[in-house]
Amino acid sequence: MLAAPDGRVVATTDFLIEGRHFRRDWSSGADAGHKAAARSLADLAAMGADPTGLLLALAAPPDLPVTWAASLARGLAAEAARAGAAVIGGDTARADMVLLAVTGLGDLAGRDPVLRSGAKPGDVVAVAGPLGHAAAGLALLTAGVRGDPLIGEHLRPMPPYGAGPEAAALGATAMIDVSDGLLADLGHIARASGVLVDLDPDRLRPGEELIAAAATPVSGRTRGPQAPVPPASPARQALAWVLAGGEDHSLAATFPAGTRLPARWRIIGAVKEGTAKARTADARAGRPENGDVVVGGQPWEQPPGWDHFAAGTPSG
Amino acid sequence: MLAAPDGRVVATTDFLIEGRHFRRDWSSGADAGHKAAARSLADLAAMGADPTGLLLALAAPPDLPVTWAASLARGLAAEAARAGAAVIGGDTARADMVLLAVTGLGDLAGRDPVLRSGAKPGDVVAVAGPLGHAAAGLALLTAGVRGDPLIGEHLRPMPPYGAGPEAAALGATAMIDVSDGLLADLGHIARASGVLVDLDPDRLRPGEELIAAAATPVSGRTRGPQAPVPPASPARQALAWVLAGGEDHSLAATFPAGTRLPARWRIIGAVKEGTAKARTADARAGRPENGDVVVGGQPWEQPPGWDHFAAGTPSG
Repeated sequence: MLAAPDGRVVATTDFLIEGRHFRRDWSSGADAGHKAAARSLADLAAMGADPTGLLLALAAPPDLPVTWAASLARGLAAEAARAGAAVIGGDTARADMVLLAVTGLGDLAGRDPVLRSGAKPGDVVAVAGPLGHAAAGLALLTAGVRGDPLIGEHLRPMPPYGAGPEAAALGATAMIDVSDGLLADLGHIARASGVLVDLDPDRLRPGEELIAAAATPVSGRTRGPQAPVPPASPARQALAWVLAGGEDHSLAATFPAGTRLPARWRIIGAVKEGTAKARTADARAGRPENGDVVVGGQPWEQPPGWDHFAAGTPSG
Repeated sequence: MLAAPDGRVVATTDFLIEGRHFRRDWSSGADAGHKAAARSLADLAAMGADPTGLLLALAAPPDLPVTWAASLARGLAAEAARAGAAVIGGDTARADMVLLAVTGLGDLAGRDPVLRSGAKPGDVVAVAGPLGHAAAGLALLTAGVRGDPLIGEHLRPMPPYGAGPEAAALGATAMIDVSDGLLADLGHIARASGVLVDLDPDRLRPGEELIAAAATPVSGRTRGPQAPVPPASPARQALAWVLAGGEDHSLAATFPAGTRLPARWRIIGAVKEGTAKARTADARAGRPENGDVVVGGQPWEQPPGWDHFAAGTPSG
């Protein structure tokens, strides 16, 4: 039983699956529990809710070490506690793989829920939390690097949960957590709101740590069939992580122009009327495209060699 | 977003797994969705809550027919609607098997939640809904029978959801839904409450339909390695289904003596002080035993041949 003082409850369910969202040779049980909690809690925060409770359904092979499962439960509970939530239930079952389904519950504390559909032309687009760090960390792991702080950000994303209710209180018109990548997730807002999101490339310059990670040599064993494609320049690869990397679980929101934003919210673009006029080469080729989000007024195209790091590894 | 007018929310998460809780050659998608909903909704009702919402996490192989998944969603939504709840969210993922994790949310409407720990000596034990029907239906399916109404009760259990809040309003001291079997589930209440539950065998006599099902010849192919054990008599097998069969998701509760119970609540026993003095042969042999529940003052022992129907098939 969980308090729901608002008289309404918001709820979300997400899978976390071995081999896709985590690898047991890279993630400890606590890492996987932390990440499962973060995915769910960030989704609640992005509605403007205060996370209150988590439920964990854990399916695992019979040979999963009990210490790993116990470590997972501790990681989940610790990250829930960081967001102010409690683990209030769960179930376990046998399966051929480790699979978690996490349900998160949150309280709106009298605020309206922030939806994806409320962005209006004239709004600013702002983000709280890092962009591209989890993708860079995954690329480093895949390249055989160990110990880089970016890897820690991949294994244990640290969403700024409090920024969600804060944005709701400030009048955010739409909000989402960056799980699939900034362009993809802002695309959900753009389509739901019927607007164009124009990102300012000058405000999205990758930091030195991302450019350094992008300059890391890729060991031969991680090159996939597409290895002949020359990799992008480090700056371009790093920008690709910022724009298209997922799993940071930072919060992206739109606010009425002139809203005084706390320092952790960085303005990165503007909401405009209309939809992207040009379609990207990806869209013409039938590949996923970024919807109604442009960068400096132009559709963004993935650099050649994009994702050459990550072939065959977990992805957002 | 879901209304939580009480200001508290109760929540529960359960797996439903292909090969253990259902088989796709026996259950349609709608059957599986119905059963997944019933498991979760009955658990909420057993707390005395009005079910309000369900979230479905569905993992499935890529070759799962989309019509099966759509049928599952319809079955889930239809059974949720029967209980007064809405499907409010979900997630999907790929896996090697069909696996559902269902989270149910409920509202207490101002009542105290009914726990497992409140049974007191002197209380009566009562049940609402059928006992042993789902187990008999599974046995018939396994024996190759098709079309028997008991099979329908296995594929689509119909928990008496309204009986849960009704029992709470009547002052039920403890309650549980019968998912693992009457003895096992009342054992949870007995242990949590520190009491002895004594069931009255005269009030648990199996109906004719169960005895007829128990007399159904078992085809050779379903006999497992233990086939040489002679099967129990039909009456004894049917009583075993009543006492130990799971998945009916009927509600079992304890009430203060003298509580005027509506007709759907049948008194089946009494709560007494102490714990079962004798341990069963199963317990002495290290096998699971039934805790502090006795039948006519005596520990109940599974008949020889118990479960001979069900070897290698889904079980509760």
